[in-house]
Amino acid sequence: MSSVFPERPVSSLAQLATPCLVLERGKLARNLARMAATVAIRGLNFRPHLKTAKSAAIGQLAAPPPDGAITVSTLREAEYFAHHGWRDIFYCVGLAPGKIARAAALHRAGVRLITLVDHPDAAAALRAHADRESLRFRTVIEIDCGEHRGGVAPDSEQLLAIARELGPHFAGVATHGGQSYGERSPAGFVRVAQAEVDALRTAATRLHAAGFPSDILSLGSSPTALAGVDATGITEVRAGVYMFWDAFQAGIGACSLDDVALTVLAEVIGRPADRPNEFLIDAGAFALSKDTSTAALAPEKMAGYGFVCDVDGVLQPNLRVQKVWQEHGLVVSATPLPAEKFRIGDRVRIIPNHACPTAAAHDRYHVVSGTREVLAEWTRVNGW
Amino acid sequence: MSSVFPERPVSSLAQLATPCLVLERGKLARNLARMAATVAIRGLNFRPHLKTAKSAAIGQLAAPPPDGAITVSTLREAEYFAHHGWRDIFYCVGLAPGKIARAAALHRAGVRLITLVDHPDAAAALRAHADRESLRFRTVIEIDCGEHRGGVAPDSEQLLAIARELGPHFAGVATHGGQSYGERSPAGFVRVAQAEVDALRTAATRLHAAGFPSDILSLGSSPTALAGVDATGITEVRAGVYMFWDAFQAGIGACSLDDVALTVLAEVIGRPADRPNEFLIDAGAFALSKDTSTAALAPEKMAGYGFVCDVDGVLQPNLRVQKVWQEHGLVVSATPLPAEKFRIGDRVRIIPNHACPTAAAHDRYHVVSGTREVLAEWTRVNGW
Repeated sequence: MSSVFPERPVSSLAQLATPCLVLERGKLARNLARMAATVAIRGLNFRPHLKTAKSAAIGQLAAPPPDGAITVSTLREAEYFAHHGWRDIFYCVGLAPGKIARAAALHRAGVRLITLVDHPDAAAALRAHADRESLRFRTVIEIDCGEHRGGVAPDSEQLLAIARELGPHFAGVATHGGQSYGERSPAGFVRVAQAEVDALRTAATRLHAAGFPSDILSLGSSPTALAGVDATGITEVRAGVYMFWDAFQAGIGACSLDDVALTVLAEVIGRPADRPNEFLIDAGAFALSKDTSTAALAPEKMAGYGFVCDVDGVLQPNLRVQKVWQEHGLVVSATPLPAEKFRIGDRVRIIPNHACPTAAAHDRYHVVSGTREVLAEWTRVNGW
Repeated sequence: MSSVFPERPVSSLAQLATPCLVLERGKLARNLARMAATVAIRGLNFRPHLKTAKSAAIGQLAAPPPDGAITVSTLREAEYFAHHGWRDIFYCVGLAPGKIARAAALHRAGVRLITLVDHPDAAAALRAHADRESLRFRTVIEIDCGEHRGGVAPDSEQLLAIARELGPHFAGVATHGGQSYGERSPAGFVRVAQAEVDALRTAATRLHAAGFPSDILSLGSSPTALAGVDATGITEVRAGVYMFWDAFQAGIGACSLDDVALTVLAEVIGRPADRPNEFLIDAGAFALSKDTSTAALAPEKMAGYGFVCDVDGVLQPNLRVQKVWQEHGLVVSATPLPAEKFRIGDRVRIIPNHACPTAAAHDRYHVVSGTREVLAEWTRVNGW
């Protein structure tokens, strides 16, 4: 990890401009190692999803270039990681006609880009463009294993129609058991993990019989990747939020709250004289996001807009970010606050509900390792 | 407007990389003119809030530099607008100790920065720093007129204590009737506008009696700024979201849906064979935000995550963005969709629930004027 950490601290949590992201290096490393080991034990290739981290420095730890295989959620990410040396990139959102030219440019630049389609029209547009430029796309068909977002049913007629449209650009099948976020137990994650495997096997078997053998059978979500079902025949696993985890993932039991590596550093900017259980911080809807996913959990797991830690990362169990405005967050305590804590200018760290949208509001991570010293700044890519 | 519009179109809505922001120049101009006229008729100075637009090009239309008075919500914005020539800037969020050095740097650079405090400790820290650097801060005390976010009560002891701490850095009072967002009628907006005026008058009268005359009496929110109550004694009005408006503001009656100048351009990326009322777009939680403010309105005003227009901006009344994932949005129609509309690759424009967080996910506006031609790209500043 020498290349991404300078020799001396670059700042401290007392000096950083707030609000900003703080990333615990030890927790990140532990999360990366746990997932990598779990996937390796299952005999699968791992293709980390960088949609959450969106950072070359973190990608370097998770799947170093040029050989590391990665997943991305936007073409902007694909271009960014290609620029930083990655060559094996899966753009895992349905490729629509308006994005084919940019995908083709990545192919021409030597990136082994995997693209995803779930409709014959998208496949036809892709093939027409690729053939015109004499490019060979590696395209997988998205299979719906029960989330009902994108994808075709594994037993559908549509599946074979798409493969026929793709012709030589067909490379396999992929699915995402996103319904795992609706589960609340290890048994639930196993059930969804099994649905992912079954859907890909059914689809690949039918495609093979129709003359389309699959090189790629790709599946995953952070909760299902750790579930450990038998995955014979599957070639690779994807997962992203596991790098940081968050209050929602802790709430559904995919991790513990202590595993969460990402917090938002904020400063106390208000301490209302007439509301002794409340204070205001400079992290609001923009710095934390308006995600309220933990509202669907049991009361003790509801974080409002985030759990509150002190500046050293120690959880303050009575506190929640209960309300947000654009640049204000209102922290409410279940018990009266002592006068000497959370004073104007004190700093706190917020565990977000959902790491992905929270991180997306920021352009860099401030990396710490159990102290207030900031060891590195890692930039990230946002937008499209 | 010549300086911000090049001679020829720079692109078209058919070519832009999606998702991205589209801004209707005519609606923007109409919104700016309506608010400016209303404030002028009331005999007040206007200090547009650029927390929504965050763009020098738009600031130039709303309050051109160097003389234009503006409001901002972050020091990053203050620095950005100072860099673009503005000199009269109100940073309208409680200034905590960690930000005083950056505020002082703006003062030293010649910016007439107005800062805001609502606690004696914040005032004392500001004064200590300013006196040390021999700077004169223009600081106003935040008054709570009923929103119960920041601010002190106009009749509180705290008010005078803060003024005494500020000493020579005291410049006046400010309030924000943010509770106007909870109103649903012009009468409600008038009630909150009156609460703003009353709170500032009470506070300024008490401060004056204690030897602290106010140069600045600043109030506002977009709904109350248009309410037109008698504002004798008030010096200035702030408002921000009125430049773009949004589905929520239309829902509470502050504007009409046709006034909304900002949309998100998206492409159809999925058309599930087995769900004839649905299609998927490439604008999800990141491009639209997870704001669900219209869920608090009457059913016909609930937008889900956004109302849907065709690429020309024509509202499709049966459609809503009903669900979002990171990079996917699910559009659901109340009636079956015709096969020839909303095909893979077609483009739509989404009216967001709340313009501020939606715009914050993007780094630029694509400016149009009633056609698909993109006349200009206007960048914006994000982050802190």
